[in-house]
Amino acid sequence: MRRLFYAGKLAEEIRITGGDAHHLARVMRAQIGDAVIVAGADGRAARMTVTAAARDAVTLALAEYIAQEEAYGIEVFLAQALLKGEKMDFVVQKAAELGASGIYPVETEHVVVRYDMKKAAAKTARWQKIADEAAKQCGRSKLMPVAPIRALADLLVDARIFDPADTAIVFCYEQEHRQSVRTVLQTIKARRVVIFVGAEGGFSSAEADMICAAGGQPVSLGRLILRAETAALTALAVTQYELGNL
Amino acid sequence: MRRLFYAGKLAEEIRITGGDAHHLARVMRAQIGDAVIVAGADGRAARMTVTAAARDAVTLALAEYIAQEEAYGIEVFLAQALLKGEKMDFVVQKAAELGASGIYPVETEHVVVRYDMKKAAAKTARWQKIADEAAKQCGRSKLMPVAPIRALADLLVDARIFDPADTAIVFCYEQEHRQSVRTVLQTIKARRVVIFVGAEGGFSSAEADMICAAGGQPVSLGRLILRAETAALTALAVTQYELGNL
Repeated sequence: MRRLFYAGKLAEEIRITGGDAHHLARVMRAQIGDAVIVAGADGRAARMTVTAAARDAVTLALAEYIAQEEAYGIEVFLAQALLKGEKMDFVVQKAAELGASGIYPVETEHVVVRYDMKKAAAKTARWQKIADEAAKQCGRSKLMPVAPIRALADLLVDARIFDPADTAIVFCYEQEHRQSVRTVLQTIKARRVVIFVGAEGGFSSAEADMICAAGGQPVSLGRLILRAETAALTALAVTQYELGNL
Repeated sequence: MRRLFYAGKLAEEIRITGGDAHHLARVMRAQIGDAVIVAGADGRAARMTVTAAARDAVTLALAEYIAQEEAYGIEVFLAQALLKGEKMDFVVQKAAELGASGIYPVETEHVVVRYDMKKAAAKTARWQKIADEAAKQCGRSKLMPVAPIRALADLLVDARIFDPADTAIVFCYEQEHRQSVRTVLQTIKARRVVIFVGAEGGFSSAEADMICAAGGQPVSLGRLILRAETAALTALAVTQYELGNL
């Protein structure tokens, strides 16, 4: 079933224009009579039918409202050390596609890029835009929030995120060679998973201690050395897989 | 353990220079005394010790030869419909990192890019170079061959690849909504898995019939619509995960 995020309120009939229409008609190849799941900005979702489709405008008629899907029973978050320009953009986009509930950009010792406050705010806004675009494209019913950039130590003391009662911390650590990600994922009982992935240079051992002290379970992603962005995607994909979301 | 592909024959002492030295010293942060697994172009592998490390040259001394690792008991191949420029490059790189044993670029009905024979050969050479670089970077002990571009029908009749006795075909199909990739992966007993991933516009229904007739098991990668390159990575990652390679 095609899925679409609609940046307005759902109604008996909605008209999609511009890039979204192009996407629906050309990329998703929607034709008259096709059913489409539409998630509205108002938080409602509906099954709708294509009643007209042109290159620049697609009209959809309401078939029925459906329950806002609880697509992900267990929420998965990504805490990603800052990567150089395009790679961070890429990770944000893919995290949204892979159903992450949110992303926390983190400054760590080995990050190559550092931003002053103004630049950091601009970056966050840019990533949010990328995440919103990806959410729309992949048919998420909720957008994926991108948190402001924070230092690792700051993030780790945030009780809202790291309530040990219901959070499992999967710590992708290149120095971990014994415990596989599988071993850890298969024992998760928490309602929330936070995956930590380092920058190009990995985590320092002091940082690793800090993450473990906060409850992080160090895991290996296999024998091959994955680039940072590959590690992020792989960890997200296998977590969603193990949790039954793929 | 750091892993390195060495484009020469292993010896009591080897000297790594240029980009590889930079990679080992700066990116992988190897220091004097560190152990490194080195796979030589001669097919042998050894544990070696860093005896000198500068920005432009790293010297390694042989500690012991080790068995060429059979890292992947079950071979995983990717049959990927041609994607536009950068995306195909990206999929080739990530497939190498994720331990694919080979990649088959495939021309399908909905591919956006078409190459004449000369251009196709140049593309294959380029992808092979990308795959070799990635293999080196991630520490694979074998390179990942990139096959020449072929039409889908041609590929499917190739008995060397699709011997039904030992090959499982995982067919990532955007129109499949019932059978999850997990259901199929968990039943694999074959020694070889070939994953089919479509182009931006997916597979036509005639193509889907053809793949299924060849033994392909259509699978869904979840409720969200993944971009072609995300689907490829996700399918590879979860397959390696399920096969115990992560």
